[in-house]
Amino acid sequence: MFHVSYFMLHNSELRKDIVSGDWIVISPQRAKRPHDLIRKPQKRKKAPIKGCPFEDPQKTTHGEPILAYPNKKNWQVQIVQNKYPVFVPWKNSNVGVHVCASAFQKGPYWVVDGRGYHDLVITRDHYKNFAHLSKHQAVMVLKIMQDRYKMFLNDSCLAYTSIFHNWGPKAGASIYHPHYQIITLPVVPPDVQHSLKGSAQYFQRYKKCVHCVMIDWEKKSRSRIIYENKGAIVFIPFVSREPFELRIFPKKHSSFFEDATKENLKWVVDALQKVLILIEKRLNDIDYNFFIHTSPLRNKNKYYHYHWHIEVLPKISVSAGFELGTGIEITVIDPDVAAKILK
Amino acid sequence: MFHVSYFMLHNSELRKDIVSGDWIVISPQRAKRPHDLIRKPQKRKKAPIKGCPFEDPQKTTHGEPILAYPNKKNWQVQIVQNKYPVFVPWKNSNVGVHVCASAFQKGPYWVVDGRGYHDLVITRDHYKNFAHLSKHQAVMVLKIMQDRYKMFLNDSCLAYTSIFHNWGPKAGASIYHPHYQIITLPVVPPDVQHSLKGSAQYFQRYKKCVHCVMIDWEKKSRSRIIYENKGAIVFIPFVSREPFELRIFPKKHSSFFEDATKENLKWVVDALQKVLILIEKRLNDIDYNFFIHTSPLRNKNKYYHYHWHIEVLPKISVSAGFELGTGIEITVIDPDVAAKILK
Repeated sequence: MFHVSYFMLHNSELRKDIVSGDWIVISPQRAKRPHDLIRKPQKRKKAPIKGCPFEDPQKTTHGEPILAYPNKKNWQVQIVQNKYPVFVPWKNSNVGVHVCASAFQKGPYWVVDGRGYHDLVITRDHYKNFAHLSKHQAVMVLKIMQDRYKMFLNDSCLAYTSIFHNWGPKAGASIYHPHYQIITLPVVPPDVQHSLKGSAQYFQRYKKCVHCVMIDWEKKSRSRIIYENKGAIVFIPFVSREPFELRIFPKKHSSFFEDATKENLKWVVDALQKVLILIEKRLNDIDYNFFIHTSPLRNKNKYYHYHWHIEVLPKISVSAGFELGTGIEITVIDPDVAAKILK
Repeated sequence: MFHVSYFMLHNSELRKDIVSGDWIVISPQRAKRPHDLIRKPQKRKKAPIKGCPFEDPQKTTHGEPILAYPNKKNWQVQIVQNKYPVFVPWKNSNVGVHVCASAFQKGPYWVVDGRGYHDLVITRDHYKNFAHLSKHQAVMVLKIMQDRYKMFLNDSCLAYTSIFHNWGPKAGASIYHPHYQIITLPVVPPDVQHSLKGSAQYFQRYKKCVHCVMIDWEKKSRSRIIYENKGAIVFIPFVSREPFELRIFPKKHSSFFEDATKENLKWVVDALQKVLILIEKRLNDIDYNFFIHTSPLRNKNKYYHYHWHIEVLPKISVSAGFELGTGIEITVIDPDVAAKILK
């Protein structure tokens, strides 16, 4: 007779991410009882509707919506400019003619003016986060993100668009009402550059998409797959930065989030909602972030090797001195065990 | 008449770290009133001496000390093995003969067994953190770290030693009693590799240590220097990942922490204690991490261009979807303003 734990990792392992090339440590002996890591059941603090700045964004000085679906009056989802933007366009133009940010020197340093866009995507219902939207509404959220994304595609000043969601204060959300953010920058971010390079090198060497190889291997090993439907697959990666980290891939290879068909978005939404509900149930409604990883805005033909996907990171661990000093994350639950707990 | 704020940054800037090459964003408009970011005065939760596992580490199954100063009986500081080590040596040998960890493949991934060392440095006084040790004791702490570090130097299985301190639960400390950690790994961590490469490239191009250039420029601009003595300088870097991030450099160029003379350590300790007290007073005793950045253990002659130093990171912000998805940190206080608040 074997115990379940017989198959589990007993000592720690350094595992190398095949996309970014980064090392992470899986160190299960740091958490003797994985269940202890999961927070105790707590009631999520809901802010009241009264005083919520996102109930009626036009009334609370957010200005006209940039996009609103199905229409401005009966909006289910709308995009407005963030009131405290990280980046602002030169002339406050709504993707139009403006001067590009340019790099200049301050002493020995290179600096680029923070020019770009910082949008908020707001869904109408104060209490329903992404997991609880109707399928139709959830697809509408991804669709409006795609449409906004496409507005940036031909602006040669812009390099990358990052789309993300912070759910709960521990994940960095300062306002309760469900909202998503779209930040568009004049440079390609280092982590993205890193992964694009790794993915390109893998393709050059093996003539295969590195993400497709990961998906194939996860399907063969089966121990870390959380959910699968016709068009999408979710697993806890073998190389996890965080316990219960999840990646959702469209099964069909595609480098560009903005090109996903409505059919494809439906499969991805189905998978994303499923795992967010699992996090709510199995991890006692813990806060989390999710974000879209896709190719840069310009030179699209360069990134055929990349495979767009969504990453979900439940807020479990704290980055401490070792992580901050080395850039190596220590993950204290074996991804195989995490998958068993989550499923 | 000028307002102080006249000189401050109004919009955001992308700033490139000249050592690592990474971009960060300084986005002061995200925090209209910098003082709001500082937590309200709270009493630090002190764990009682009774039941503290570090009061008498030998009694609480930590085993014989690896090093104890001034001696085992009257120890002021001692090093023991961590009870929940991230890395363990093959034969539990105390730096001696053992088999090196080797890389092997699991599916498409490269894996290295987590072999190495994970030590705890414990100071005797339950209530005195590094800031409040006597100068003599504080120097003893760095000295014992140096001596332990030297034990790893000639072991060809080991690549890098990370020395760090987590102060307070938000910075990842699970035990109140002040302690420090020394983790020794079989690979050079990615962030370190990154900075070594950047520092080497800078040296090749300009025939100068990039850190010495940073120090010179900070001295000229003066607006971010927090403290300076004969042998050490502390400033908030122009490219800060976190509000109130601090770097302490020995003024004399040296690539290796372990080579610092006692005289040098005294200057560094004086500076480190000064800024930790400033954090306690001006930032209402917020939790923080500090860590030593130094050259790898092997091939010492390759790293003449590097300049060892200590980084201090007060735990102020949460990494949210943007940071996690892009690797770009958003710092919401202009480093010049942060310096004014902290000094």
